[in-house]
Amino acid sequence: MKWEFEQVTPAEIEKRSFEIIESELPHPLDPELAPIIKRVIHTSADFEYADSLCFSPDVVNKALDAIRRGACIVTDTNMGKSGINKKALARHGGEVFCFMADEDVARMAKENGTTRAVASMDKACSIDRPLIFAIGNAPTALIRLYELIESGKLKPELIIGVPVGFVNVVPAKELIMEAGVPYIVARGRKGGSNVAAAICNALLYLLGRE
Amino acid sequence: MKWEFEQVTPAEIEKRSFEIIESELPHPLDPELAPIIKRVIHTSADFEYADSLCFSPDVVNKALDAIRRGACIVTDTNMGKSGINKKALARHGGEVFCFMADEDVARMAKENGTTRAVASMDKACSIDRPLIFAIGNAPTALIRLYELIESGKLKPELIIGVPVGFVNVVPAKELIMEAGVPYIVARGRKGGSNVAAAICNALLYLLGRE
Repeated sequence: MKWEFEQVTPAEIEKRSFEIIESELPHPLDPELAPIIKRVIHTSADFEYADSLCFSPDVVNKALDAIRRGACIVTDTNMGKSGINKKALARHGGEVFCFMADEDVARMAKENGTTRAVASMDKACSIDRPLIFAIGNAPTALIRLYELIESGKLKPELIIGVPVGFVNVVPAKELIMEAGVPYIVARGRKGGSNVAAAICNALLYLLGRE
Repeated sequence: MKWEFEQVTPAEIEKRSFEIIESELPHPLDPELAPIIKRVIHTSADFEYADSLCFSPDVVNKALDAIRRGACIVTDTNMGKSGINKKALARHGGEVFCFMADEDVARMAKENGTTRAVASMDKACSIDRPLIFAIGNAPTALIRLYELIESGKLKPELIIGVPVGFVNVVPAKELIMEAGVPYIVARGRKGGSNVAAAICNALLYLLGRE
């Protein structure tokens, strides 16, 4: 083969990837936040996240504490749900929910003229457990979360606000950073379900892997 | 609210997003390829794909023809599988497979000292139907596909080669473009399961939506 490949074992691939990321970072990272930022870069190969990710004060400790208390994760895509390490979360008693494909959510959204993401957030209010929201797709989910928090119907442990897109994504992220709850937000247009899942997994792996 | 939001109905969001993408493209796109490139930008908010996506000659027609003949899609992540519009594919008789979490794949990988992605590609050889591979994560899957094609064990209808990452991703993508089968490849480090799913969906939507 004329192309050159690094000889690494399957187990070494991730370690080697993180070494490369470390060596190419545009600037040093806050050690507390570095595992999250690096895992997002690992999932995207996009070093812009070294600057676009925004964290509320002490968010990592608060998030880990919530996971230890059995927090559940609510996503706005089944793709995000699929990417989260559900086994690692289950060790602390949590589970992952995505209501987007539920029939009652489709019906509620149609009746109210909202996105299904909005109806999914409303449905999440009925879960009587600590909640982390991992929003990788729908800015309307973030806007609805803001409203639910403002009206006292919801008090999330953490909002991962990383929808990707062109319509209302940028202001929805700015808005959610003012909701008064812990957040991890990718400022700007970029993000995605993969980024949302990567942030969840980075937090889970801080509590130990396997 | 101090942030300004565009007033669009849920149904209009995607249309409006594509208008914005169209207006910000760095250069005009080949009309045949534009729906694929624009959907990848839609899923990533990353205009680099306007230049990094590489297409083999007449690949769109060949891919659509394969889907019409009931081609199945094999992914290297359950996240990619989750993102593909399986209903749209089923209308043509195809289904989506991901073998990554299969027990026999884990065992084969361990026995042979390979990644599970390699074992998954080997397993796919037993499917006696037209196959499209959508690889968003593992460069080792692309390398194995190249070997399987070279040795005559596999003749895919299309390889979507868009793994993301830092170790062997760049050369694996170059290699697969020389395998002599139709391809859509995101040259460089970027890509991902979301990009792989977006390309599949763009192809499916060219055959009609809903």
